[in-house]
Amino acid sequence: MTNPRLPIPVAVLGATGAVGQTFVRLLAGHPWFELAEVAASERSAGRAYADVTKWIEGDMPTAIAGMTVKACDPSVVSAPIVFSALDSHVAGEVEAAFAAAGRLVLSNAKNYRMAPDVPLVIPEVNADHLALLDLQRAGRGWAGGIVTNANCAATMAAVALAPLHAAFGARRVFVATMQAVSGAGYPGVPSLDILGNVIPYIGDEEPKLEREMQKMLGVVGTGGVTDAPFAVSAHANRVAVENGHTVCLSVEFEREPSLDDAARALREWTGAPVVRGLPTAPDVPLHFFTSDDRPQPRRDVMRGRGMTVSVGRLRRDPLFHLKFVAMGHNTIRGAAGGSILNAELLVATGRTGVA
Amino acid sequence: MTNPRLPIPVAVLGATGAVGQTFVRLLAGHPWFELAEVAASERSAGRAYADVTKWIEGDMPTAIAGMTVKACDPSVVSAPIVFSALDSHVAGEVEAAFAAAGRLVLSNAKNYRMAPDVPLVIPEVNADHLALLDLQRAGRGWAGGIVTNANCAATMAAVALAPLHAAFGARRVFVATMQAVSGAGYPGVPSLDILGNVIPYIGDEEPKLEREMQKMLGVVGTGGVTDAPFAVSAHANRVAVENGHTVCLSVEFEREPSLDDAARALREWTGAPVVRGLPTAPDVPLHFFTSDDRPQPRRDVMRGRGMTVSVGRLRRDPLFHLKFVAMGHNTIRGAAGGSILNAELLVATGRTGVA
Amino acid sequence: MTNPRLPIPVAVLGATGAVGQTFVRLLAGHPWFELAEVAASERSAGRAYADVTKWIEGDMPTAIAGMTVKACDPSVVSAPIVFSALDSHVAGEVEAAFAAAGRLVLSNAKNYRMAPDVPLVIPEVNADHLALLDLQRAGRGWAGGIVTNANCAATMAAVALAPLHAAFGARRVFVATMQAVSGAGYPGVPSLDILGNVIPYIGDEEPKLEREMQKMLGVVGTGGVTDAPFAVSAHANRVAVENGHTVCLSVEFEREPSLDDAARALREWTGAPVVRGLPTAPDVPLHFFTSDDRPQPRRDVMRGRGMTVSVGRLRRDPLFHLKFVAMGHNTIRGAAGGSILNAELLVATGRTGVA
Amino acid sequence: MTNPRLPIPVAVLGATGAVGQTFVRLLAGHPWFELAEVAASERSAGRAYADVTKWIEGDMPTAIAGMTVKACDPSVVSAPIVFSALDSHVAGEVEAAFAAAGRLVLSNAKNYRMAPDVPLVIPEVNADHLALLDLQRAGRGWAGGIVTNANCAATMAAVALAPLHAAFGARRVFVATMQAVSGAGYPGVPSLDILGNVIPYIGDEEPKLEREMQKMLGVVGTGGVTDAPFAVSAHANRVAVENGHTVCLSVEFEREPSLDDAARALREWTGAPVVRGLPTAPDVPLHFFTSDDRPQPRRDVMRGRGMTVSVGRLRRDPLFHLKFVAMGHNTIRGAAGGSILNAELLVATGRTGVA
Repeated sequence: MTNPRLPIPVAVLGATGAVGQTFVRLLAGHPWFELAEVAASERSAGRAYADVTKWIEGDMPTAIAGMTVKACDPSVVSAPIVFSALDSHVAGEVEAAFAAAGRLVLSNAKNYRMAPDVPLVIPEVNADHLALLDLQRAGRGWAGGIVTNANCAATMAAVALAPLHAAFGARRVFVATMQAVSGAGYPGVPSLDILGNVIPYIGDEEPKLEREMQKMLGVVGTGGVTDAPFAVSAHANRVAVENGHTVCLSVEFEREPSLDDAARALREWTGAPVVRGLPTAPDVPLHFFTSDDRPQPRRDVMRGRGMTVSVGRLRRDPLFHLKFVAMGHNTIRGAAGGSILNAELLVATGRTGVA
Repeated sequence: MTNPRLPIPVAVLGATGAVGQTFVRLLAGHPWFELAEVAASERSAGRAYADVTKWIEGDMPTAIAGMTVKACDPSVVSAPIVFSALDSHVAGEVEAAFAAAGRLVLSNAKNYRMAPDVPLVIPEVNADHLALLDLQRAGRGWAGGIVTNANCAATMAAVALAPLHAAFGARRVFVATMQAVSGAGYPGVPSLDILGNVIPYIGDEEPKLEREMQKMLGVVGTGGVTDAPFAVSAHANRVAVENGHTVCLSVEFEREPSLDDAARALREWTGAPVVRGLPTAPDVPLHFFTSDDRPQPRRDVMRGRGMTVSVGRLRRDPLFHLKFVAMGHNTIRGAAGGSILNAELLVATGRTGVA
Repeated sequence: MTNPRLPIPVAVLGATGAVGQTFVRLLAGHPWFELAEVAASERSAGRAYADVTKWIEGDMPTAIAGMTVKACDPSVVSAPIVFSALDSHVAGEVEAAFAAAGRLVLSNAKNYRMAPDVPLVIPEVNADHLALLDLQRAGRGWAGGIVTNANCAATMAAVALAPLHAAFGARRVFVATMQAVSGAGYPGVPSLDILGNVIPYIGDEEPKLEREMQKMLGVVGTGGVTDAPFAVSAHANRVAVENGHTVCLSVEFEREPSLDDAARALREWTGAPVVRGLPTAPDVPLHFFTSDDRPQPRRDVMRGRGMTVSVGRLRRDPLFHLKFVAMGHNTIRGAAGGSILNAELLVATGRTGVA
Repeated sequence: MTNPRLPIPVAVLGATGAVGQTFVRLLAGHPWFELAEVAASERSAGRAYADVTKWIEGDMPTAIAGMTVKACDPSVVSAPIVFSALDSHVAGEVEAAFAAAGRLVLSNAKNYRMAPDVPLVIPEVNADHLALLDLQRAGRGWAGGIVTNANCAATMAAVALAPLHAAFGARRVFVATMQAVSGAGYPGVPSLDILGNVIPYIGDEEPKLEREMQKMLGVVGTGGVTDAPFAVSAHANRVAVENGHTVCLSVEFEREPSLDDAARALREWTGAPVVRGLPTAPDVPLHFFTSDDRPQPRRDVMRGRGMTVSVGRLRRDPLFHLKFVAMGHNTIRGAAGGSILNAELLVATGRTGVA
């Protein structure tokens, strides 16, 4: 990819928060994108990024520290591609404004995920869903558009389920999650709540887990996406882990697979070919373990620089057909890294209007 | 209960390990039982208890520190009631020897749990299963007998399921556990394995979870126990919690209950009346939470001095009928405390032959 | 103590926060004090305690849940004894108002600790410092008065140092602390900051550690307290512990003690006799360990219902004379429990004007 | 460095344990060294490395998995450079045998650290101490030799102290450590001992901290090393951190420095020039923080790929002159990485006799 117009200037909306910082960190040194602008709430706007940001992991990239924070307004942010780490209570309006102003918005917020004309994309799983952008532009009259990525735990489950659903047709899916504290942002979960503890509840998490996978694994057509015809039941739990959501799954299929066939499907899956070689794409999108006690968040979360989903413990289920465990990095694969990969996919498929 | 023959001398087999220590701790000051003997492996026998035991919680009761450890042999241990914290690779033979020698063995080991003539008892749930002792004595020619308690995680699930199964008939049960490190004994789980981590595997745990509940919730008759006719699928995970196993359940019933009816069944359940008032019985065997985010191990594990099982997050399940969470103290309710309560039940029901 | 005027009604100021909740918890069922009023900031006043309080440990005492929160104003709070868990930015003014209005204020805030006419008291260590109240009333014209307790980490260090200072005269004291997250209140330390981590900094903690001990171990006379003539250097660290501050000390004395003499001083110290038997006083104010690896916060923090300070690892110091470790419960002995014991001491010594 | 004889074959002794695994991990892809042999105890010898090793971090390098483990015997291990991760109870004899057999032994064991003719080296601090090898060979008649690296916590303290000692002359040094569980190897610290806890004791750690720094910061002459003339008092603690030892220091100097002068000395120190550019040498051996709350193990431990020691919180000490905090990766800088850097220094300075 030797594009004379690279690098493309990009902006991060909500750049001072935890997910926003992950965008800033992952975009430092990106071969295609240059982080040209950071934007945040009114009370941060006009001040230096380093002065309004409590940086929480590693060192703040020096090029960003002195950058003046802008307001989240398309009239002051000029980048053609914007990554949104906005809270859902403001994301709806702001993202629409950027899309209307001709920008491509890569969003982590939940607001538009389930909109019929908005792609909810994990590139390796459903790159073809980007076709919804045409529907979106036609229907909303936007020059730009919004592409969303899924809830972080739903992402891990969807990657693990993708090859099995493709081969055997998922019908019923039971998921129980053990989610890292970084999923709650910063300051997020108080230490008094989680040290030596499990919190068997994460607000608004189970509904996302119970509906987003069907859209991602659905079939896109001219009229939109037809959801995959399976039902999901989710138990969401918070555990004392820094990074990495672990998901236990039990799945019933249309056609019961043998353990060998299921293992092969998982092992051989490499995702949509168009994704391969993109800067943020991992060599292996799904790593399949045969050892008893993996994946584990602390040991496996950085596989593929945080972009690989690890799957293991494949075994028979006494009620459904198969049981297994999926785990991946919630703020990289499940948030900022996933958004950046979505943007790369847009560039690579010529959908940016800029590359 | 003013019995002139009280206190009854009791012994702990495997007294130096983690579960053995919990027995020693809980028996200190017991109103009916006097810990008269401690027994352990050959290499500890003949030495002072304090010299062969790395005590792991609180202070060692002073009365026990100087006690000479005996061998696990009914010819040198004379107590009529023995609590077994033995490892399963020795429990089979040793417990049988004690039972043959006329002792009542209250066992935490898995060896006899599934034997058709051995009661697997949570007193509040299936006190009537003690009737199996007659079958056991008749069939094996033992003067004493063995009463077992269940796997620690299965215990929490069974208590939560008991009132719902009684009212609505469980048909299919999903359980996903998050289990405390104390369940693995001492030294048990290396800190490098669990700090900031989840281990999605506990050796031999899922099979126990998938079969012990059906026996406990089964119906006892003259010929033995007829298992409860439901199937279980289990996911067992280890988390960075000291004490307290948390279990997520999804259950399908014969008769779908309303949420209100299910809540009432949980809230009003008080267990077998014969258990009430026993020294180790909690005032409330099942505490039902209506708040969003409970039970939690660190905050709720000591409810009822570790003998209460806490249940909460009752809600509809998109696949089955109900979802909920159960949590309890794995080394108290799920092990030593449960065994002691079993012994108290034997005494209270005149089944000891000694009281 | 059979006082016909007992129980005495008491109030907690700042009752909704972490320390305030500890007061509420410890006062439930107190034999002398009846928690009659709870007060907090303006935005909580007028509402039910349960509605404005996120309760963080165990269950909220039912008697308190429905109590209407009052404003922190002596004209609406009528209890003669008030426990202050106020933040330091409001404690100064509010506590003075209560003292002026004739109330006895037992304060956890730092505002008045170092005032020459305000007692800074650990009852077992310097009960006689209460004599400062006369000076305080005379000088300030207050009908009531303020009695403070020390910084939580300074409390553990001062109790450990008290018997040694009395016997050998401390000259230089080096302290390095490892402090529990509960010391920062709730929500307090974000979990992302402390899981798998150490934070070698606690704002404004080292200055307190470097000056409060000298006052507490000082000599009270008619003109006030003459500070103990030793200097302190402190390193304060936050660690992933729920409750219990651990303090490493190296001390140089006027008269170098032998290890045996120092051990005897620690072992035999029982504190001021007037404290013995007070409801909140532990049987043993200082527990001395001879084993290698104690005290430890998780194992020893609840000793004496959280009121005992545990000391161990006494050994020679290559630079100074002795090294040792002290540990105690920061929100009980180091905060609310210490304040309640101070109040009991006032009652027992007839200094309340109310009992 | 384009040496035609590179890569040099190397071996790891004690390759199956935690430190041994770190050697294996760090040597994978090393530009100068090729891991040609792994050796361990008799019971592992003759078996495949993957079959006798419970790998604890990341993935086992595939090239090593199938390698046959050898005995720790110079007659079967042929590499000219051997890295020793042996336990101290066997290291003494085995390392001497290899040195006698003409091999260069880079040892993590404590056995020879304090021997007057054995270099105890942190390359940036005392590269010139390698001159002791001549004395060692002459005195012991060894064709090879032993070079040791220090206790992991002493290493962090020594790096932080080096520039200050060089400039101002350390006289008295207090250190209080908070050490990661990985320092105890695997399985090492049981999780029941450290979750939510601090253990204020690490066997045999304080003596090493109290004597190794003086040798490393000493002056080498023809007759050996003259220890630096300062005294050290150490408090060693274990905390719930995976990797990274944090050390609080208070130091008195011959010449009291201003804070500015001390900060400049720390900031400008780059260590022995001969080390710069070695494959394992970090760009910055000592990173100096000016922010309040750094260094922190989780956030800073991987600085310089685990080879940089982070120093911060420089401030006045009320008893001595300066207080500060040092932190570094205990199994990389403080163990395997330090040994490998020592080996690189030997090669770069022509002391191997092999390159």
